[in-house]
Amino acid sequence: MGETTPSAAAKQQGLVPGTVIYTGDKTSSDLYIEVFDYNKDSFEEKELNDIEEAFRYAESEPVTWVNINGINHTEAIEKIGKHYDLHPLILEDIANTQQRPKIDEYENYLFVVLKMLYFDKDEKLAIEHISFVVGKGYVISFQEADGDVFDAIRNRIRTGKGRVRTMGADYLLYALMDAVVDNYFNLIETMGEKIEELEDDLFEEKPNDNITYDIQSQKREILKIRRAVFPLREVVNRIEKMEHPLIHEKTQFYLRDLYDHIIQVSESIDIYREMIWGLMDMYMTTISNKMNEVMKVLTIIASIFIPLTFLAGIYGMNFENIPELKFKYGYYILWGVMIITFFSLLYYFKRKKWL
Amino acid sequence: MGETTPSAAAKQQGLVPGTVIYTGDKTSSDLYIEVFDYNKDSFEEKELNDIEEAFRYAESEPVTWVNINGINHTEAIEKIGKHYDLHPLILEDIANTQQRPKIDEYENYLFVVLKMLYFDKDEKLAIEHISFVVGKGYVISFQEADGDVFDAIRNRIRTGKGRVRTMGADYLLYALMDAVVDNYFNLIETMGEKIEELEDDLFEEKPNDNITYDIQSQKREILKIRRAVFPLREVVNRIEKMEHPLIHEKTQFYLRDLYDHIIQVSESIDIYREMIWGLMDMYMTTISNKMNEVMKVLTIIASIFIPLTFLAGIYGMNFENIPELKFKYGYYILWGVMIITFFSLLYYFKRKKWL
Amino acid sequence: MGETTPSAAAKQQGLVPGTVIYTGDKTSSDLYIEVFDYNKDSFEEKELNDIEEAFRYAESEPVTWVNINGINHTEAIEKIGKHYDLHPLILEDIANTQQRPKIDEYENYLFVVLKMLYFDKDEKLAIEHISFVVGKGYVISFQEADGDVFDAIRNRIRTGKGRVRTMGADYLLYALMDAVVDNYFNLIETMGEKIEELEDDLFEEKPNDNITYDIQSQKREILKIRRAVFPLREVVNRIEKMEHPLIHEKTQFYLRDLYDHIIQVSESIDIYREMIWGLMDMYMTTISNKMNEVMKVLTIIASIFIPLTFLAGIYGMNFENIPELKFKYGYYILWGVMIITFFSLLYYFKRKKWL
Amino acid sequence: MGETTPSAAAKQQGLVPGTVIYTGDKTSSDLYIEVFDYNKDSFEEKELNDIEEAFRYAESEPVTWVNINGINHTEAIEKIGKHYDLHPLILEDIANTQQRPKIDEYENYLFVVLKMLYFDKDEKLAIEHISFVVGKGYVISFQEADGDVFDAIRNRIRTGKGRVRTMGADYLLYALMDAVVDNYFNLIETMGEKIEELEDDLFEEKPNDNITYDIQSQKREILKIRRAVFPLREVVNRIEKMEHPLIHEKTQFYLRDLYDHIIQVSESIDIYREMIWGLMDMYMTTISNKMNEVMKVLTIIASIFIPLTFLAGIYGMNFENIPELKFKYGYYILWGVMIITFFSLLYYFKRKKWL
Amino acid sequence: MGETTPSAAAKQQGLVPGTVIYTGDKTSSDLYIEVFDYNKDSFEEKELNDIEEAFRYAESEPVTWVNINGINHTEAIEKIGKHYDLHPLILEDIANTQQRPKIDEYENYLFVVLKMLYFDKDEKLAIEHISFVVGKGYVISFQEADGDVFDAIRNRIRTGKGRVRTMGADYLLYALMDAVVDNYFNLIETMGEKIEELEDDLFEEKPNDNITYDIQSQKREILKIRRAVFPLREVVNRIEKMEHPLIHEKTQFYLRDLYDHIIQVSESIDIYREMIWGLMDMYMTTISNKMNEVMKVLTIIASIFIPLTFLAGIYGMNFENIPELKFKYGYYILWGVMIITFFSLLYYFKRKKWL
Repeated sequence: MGETTPSAAAKQQGLVPGTVIYTGDKTSSDLYIEVFDYNKDSFEEKELNDIEEAFRYAESEPVTWVNINGINHTEAIEKIGKHYDLHPLILEDIANTQQRPKIDEYENYLFVVLKMLYFDKDEKLAIEHISFVVGKGYVISFQEADGDVFDAIRNRIRTGKGRVRTMGADYLLYALMDAVVDNYFNLIETMGEKIEELEDDLFEEKPNDNITYDIQSQKREILKIRRAVFPLREVVNRIEKMEHPLIHEKTQFYLRDLYDHIIQVSESIDIYREMIWGLMDMYMTTISNKMNEVMKVLTIIASIFIPLTFLAGIYGMNFENIPELKFKYGYYILWGVMIITFFSLLYYFKRKKWL
Repeated sequence: MGETTPSAAAKQQGLVPGTVIYTGDKTSSDLYIEVFDYNKDSFEEKELNDIEEAFRYAESEPVTWVNINGINHTEAIEKIGKHYDLHPLILEDIANTQQRPKIDEYENYLFVVLKMLYFDKDEKLAIEHISFVVGKGYVISFQEADGDVFDAIRNRIRTGKGRVRTMGADYLLYALMDAVVDNYFNLIETMGEKIEELEDDLFEEKPNDNITYDIQSQKREILKIRRAVFPLREVVNRIEKMEHPLIHEKTQFYLRDLYDHIIQVSESIDIYREMIWGLMDMYMTTISNKMNEVMKVLTIIASIFIPLTFLAGIYGMNFENIPELKFKYGYYILWGVMIITFFSLLYYFKRKKWL
Repeated sequence: MGETTPSAAAKQQGLVPGTVIYTGDKTSSDLYIEVFDYNKDSFEEKELNDIEEAFRYAESEPVTWVNINGINHTEAIEKIGKHYDLHPLILEDIANTQQRPKIDEYENYLFVVLKMLYFDKDEKLAIEHISFVVGKGYVISFQEADGDVFDAIRNRIRTGKGRVRTMGADYLLYALMDAVVDNYFNLIETMGEKIEELEDDLFEEKPNDNITYDIQSQKREILKIRRAVFPLREVVNRIEKMEHPLIHEKTQFYLRDLYDHIIQVSESIDIYREMIWGLMDMYMTTISNKMNEVMKVLTIIASIFIPLTFLAGIYGMNFENIPELKFKYGYYILWGVMIITFFSLLYYFKRKKWL
Repeated sequence: MGETTPSAAAKQQGLVPGTVIYTGDKTSSDLYIEVFDYNKDSFEEKELNDIEEAFRYAESEPVTWVNINGINHTEAIEKIGKHYDLHPLILEDIANTQQRPKIDEYENYLFVVLKMLYFDKDEKLAIEHISFVVGKGYVISFQEADGDVFDAIRNRIRTGKGRVRTMGADYLLYALMDAVVDNYFNLIETMGEKIEELEDDLFEEKPNDNITYDIQSQKREILKIRRAVFPLREVVNRIEKMEHPLIHEKTQFYLRDLYDHIIQVSESIDIYREMIWGLMDMYMTTISNKMNEVMKVLTIIASIFIPLTFLAGIYGMNFENIPELKFKYGYYILWGVMIITFFSLLYYFKRKKWL
Repeated sequence: MGETTPSAAAKQQGLVPGTVIYTGDKTSSDLYIEVFDYNKDSFEEKELNDIEEAFRYAESEPVTWVNINGINHTEAIEKIGKHYDLHPLILEDIANTQQRPKIDEYENYLFVVLKMLYFDKDEKLAIEHISFVVGKGYVISFQEADGDVFDAIRNRIRTGKGRVRTMGADYLLYALMDAVVDNYFNLIETMGEKIEELEDDLFEEKPNDNITYDIQSQKREILKIRRAVFPLREVVNRIEKMEHPLIHEKTQFYLRDLYDHIIQVSESIDIYREMIWGLMDMYMTTISNKMNEVMKVLTIIASIFIPLTFLAGIYGMNFENIPELKFKYGYYILWGVMIITFFSLLYYFKRKKWL
């Protein structure tokens, strides 16, 4: 997400609105479809090859969850669109990874977009586009690729733990969104650890060479996270307040709780944001402190030895008539003077707290 | 736009409100008029010499798009104004390139102003003033000069691809605005690349000489873009919410989508804005780091050789009685002392991590 | 305006509210009264000696504009107040140059305060206090001194150009306010030029000595302009929205246009504000860059000659037994060593890009 | 106010809400009570020893103003509370100097808290807590100590100048608040002068030693002033809008005017705030500029004399075979070389504009 | 609170919503239950071993306060939940220390979350999670561990001082919240002292080594405090405005007062926040000032002795023909020249105010 990647912008430029085109970079994902069909008493789980099989399930029982990985397979999205009579702009948004989190309310269904965030194997922030279509008795979830944060929910459906089996599609939507938001906490935590590491590096004054770059990257990441998370507040708030036959009153308590969680994440993000902005100043003072130290060493050594060298220079002169040169202990007296000068200057710097 | 150019302010100063005067700098553009007249089944495309010919088209068929390049030809604008009975302030705004994006709602027509943004051949941000008058069955678009982002729409009208031929003038307005906004994504992308280039320059510490100036220019450009894009949010929002017979319910879904896109652009702009503001700090630390390096070299060399020079100075003195001078290996012993001092200091600096 | 000048605060302190006292510094302005009395077909222009003559005009014909320069003549203000039955607080505000832009709505009249801005002959920002009383068929304008931006309007009244002669007092109010706001564009332009000059000075690194002071002054000026212009947005917005028998529907289009212009000025002000704030950072980096250059010169020269001087010092020692001194080509060999050292160091600094 | 002083927090901790306890530091103030009892035609002024005497006055005539200095005498506050049946929380707030400006509306009376600001004899910002209880026909004002800004009002009551004698208790409340706000202008003025002094010190580069501290103090003071003044906007706005039988329509014009004044003060405060924040940057550049100057002196002297000393060192060497030493004019030639080097370097630094 | 600690996030990840799990770090707290059961005339205080005993009290008399320390004992929370029929999400929030301050309104009870703040024995900010369930005639308070700020209230219940015994459960809720907020004032005070200490350290220029770290820590702490305190404004405001049978009109005055206090704390927090942000700048100038001083010492000593050493070098040369060397008083004359040079340079530096 973050920036519109060149390819993404290029892909969309000049297209008919409503064209279903995948704008992300996981273009080689396989299409994977799984169905959970459940009610209070029973449940069925199945992996499908063809999206059309899923439609049969969606009709039959109280709640059906169809999860689709691989939104690069736009033809599957289009089939679903045709079956459920979804608005073409929704189909576009399912495949358009640039779409920000939002909720669209239609008469027969709701459409929710949000972002799954995680640090990938290179410790880089990855943003995966997820969208949900919620209708009477079904939830269809669309993901970019395999791997998600919904395993706990899958297990709860299988084992019948918690409320999920006893409630409707709206609760399932809540549960899925809650899983995504819960995962934000992990992300924020990792973020916090990274910042503390940077702070410690700065404090121990052993900054790795590219600390400016690291700080700037952190800024960029926190801004991207903000952008992925903050619109979600409005989304959840609107779902909670919405008077739509698909959202039951009982679920609203849960949505309010979810809203609370997002606010919490948002606040943490803003705290980290301020901390990161402070890091640059902290780094600047670190550099200046180091410079101070360097300058002190130079000043102390130069200030002590330059005058002494001058004295030695004096008695290295070749004037025919320099009486001191003939003194028997002249050399020793000069050493005495030099040593006294040396320690006086040392004492002076000590008093100035430069040593 | 950005700043009111001297000429622009001078031109308008003291004029009767409603005077149609072109305030931009493309004063030598030729007048170019093209007409697209279409319905579901047929379409006609024509280049016109005289604006009055266009009026005939606008009356006949469901949708007519009259595109006029060269708003410096104010007499043509005035003719249109007379024909469609447009308010004199609208005519002024069509020609006034200083006008910010806005929507004016009249009983029989809507008036929309927005800005087309692109980087010109000198890589400078160029802002072109575009306005639309939308009435029953017609859209008139006014541009400063040839060259625009509407080719995809022209093609869609010609080929009948997408919805444009089956819908009304309000959809055409949407399509034209959408083309402008889609192009913002390209702009933002280029902006992002420029910023990353600057960041890389700073990181590789080979900043080109005028990097401060570059950063300040980027700031200026992002502020100008903000100013051209941000009012558009309000414009599109108001068109979507507006209950005007010219805007059909079906088009509102598309306008909401357009609104979403503008929010996305706005968010990117604000992210880049924060990144640019951070660049100056990053540059400052880069400079300070370099200074540190310079100072370290000076300090190391001076701190090593100044004391050694002092030692050499001592034995360059001409005291008659300096016993060491007469030692057989005095010279070699001194070399020994010097070499030990040299390596001790080297070790000291190594331990301080200055080497 | 900007700061309350000592005298201004002192003058007002402890006075009965509603006391008419001039708080500006143009205390020696002469009283100058001019009247424009016009309708669609005829107009009369007269310079008056006595304010009471003006009342006669105001009654007779459709629109009368009484312009009064010299609000230090508070007795004239009081006479007008008595004649038109104005609230004492209005009279106070006419003379109180500290009063910020505002609109007060009374049953029979409107009272508008705004600020005329210009750069005086010393290139300093000057702020002149202007207020308007608008009643049925008359506008009374109050200015601090001679010289204003209304000449274009005077001419339009004389020649009957534009709409002014065909419309009412509300349109005249609009026209006068529009003239003031149009002039803001000039001001903003000059401001922009000043900032660009400062930027160029900084970039060419020949900053005049007091650039910090200049930047701080610019900040102060932009803040004062902001303060004079920003409240006007609310003022014009309220006049436009107001349902007052004095404001006709036809004039509202013009007021909306005026509002647009003020927003435009406001946006420019905020852009310049950000640019000025950036200048200080820019200056800081300029200083640091210069320091870097200075340090490099010192470091290069010291780092090259301090080791060489040490070498020379070695062979200036007086040890009896220094074999090298007796070598036939010792002196030449040493020169060789020194020259090699010299160029090695030069090469080292070259590679570090310090040369 | 500013910070809760330790004693203040300690005093209040764990007390029953509604306990009347003085939290300020003027604990040795004497109790001083004065009464102004007036109507259109007559007035009486009296100094009282006992608060109970005041109650008699408050009942008799149209308007009675009871002014009480010394809110450390909490027993007097409690007596008033009992007599007028005031809510215990009001009594607490009268004595609690930590209380921020506010308005509390009760059925029979209004309670207003605000802050009197002045610079004390040490030029430090002093904040005095003032509160008003306004009922039918009476105003009771509570101050911490003697000395206030109400003398002009006392005189107006005595002489019958202005409207105060002809209007009710609500106008008296307005007049007293207006006097406090008028005094803010003086304060703001002094603040402005201080800032300009600091700016001039910085500009003339003779910053007194503790300028950082001074700037930080100014920041602290402006923040405290903000905090004392800004809530007053809301207070006055609410009184003006309030539909309470104690506030007459006629007085609302005056309150609107007062509101205007507070806005003006607030704007000045924010301008000064930005100026102060800018001072730190200004100081930073001043320091850096000075450093630059110091470094230039060092660089020029070192860069000129280090190479020359090297040359002298060369010919101080004791090689047996240094042909130049035997040249007749060797010494003079060397002087020539040295002088040329000296002026070349001087010219170089001149060209670099370091001299 | 502040950051979600790793364990906390890990604990909650993937759990069924409504699972009661303690996420804090005081996992070894003992369960401690105390009951205050009182009315106007009598009161009973008891320490309980089993939570179920408490239910008996809650039913009997007008007001019962059950205080529970040790929310790590989640089984006790669950029992209460079952007895009072609390929503599972409330039980989760009682134990979830990450929960931000909030108010949840249910038909039969209110649920309030807030944060108790204090500096622990290591002078670190500690945040303790407190929640209240308020029903008809009872308040249940949940704390993480022993030690709180409610002793004053316990005493007031015991002695019957103040209003607490004469009023209902809503007043008790107010009193408990008020105690928490009162304690914020102490916290803020300590914060203020810490900041002033840092300021003084910076001013006396004896910054302890890790002052950057200290400042950054203060930032972090003030951000955490903000986060714990600011949502409380909304909470108290909502309770005050709420029309719930549990909140009586009489208590609303007290809640408004409490709201006022929170605003006061919030304002102080924001003032300190700005002061802390200013500290980094202050530190930066301190460092730069020190650097300036160091550089001055170096410059003065080097600038004086380098030229003198050059002079000595000249007369240390071995040219055969250096006439000055043979002058009888050559040596003394040179000394004279050197001393004059020395004092001239000293005078120069004096005039530049570097000495």
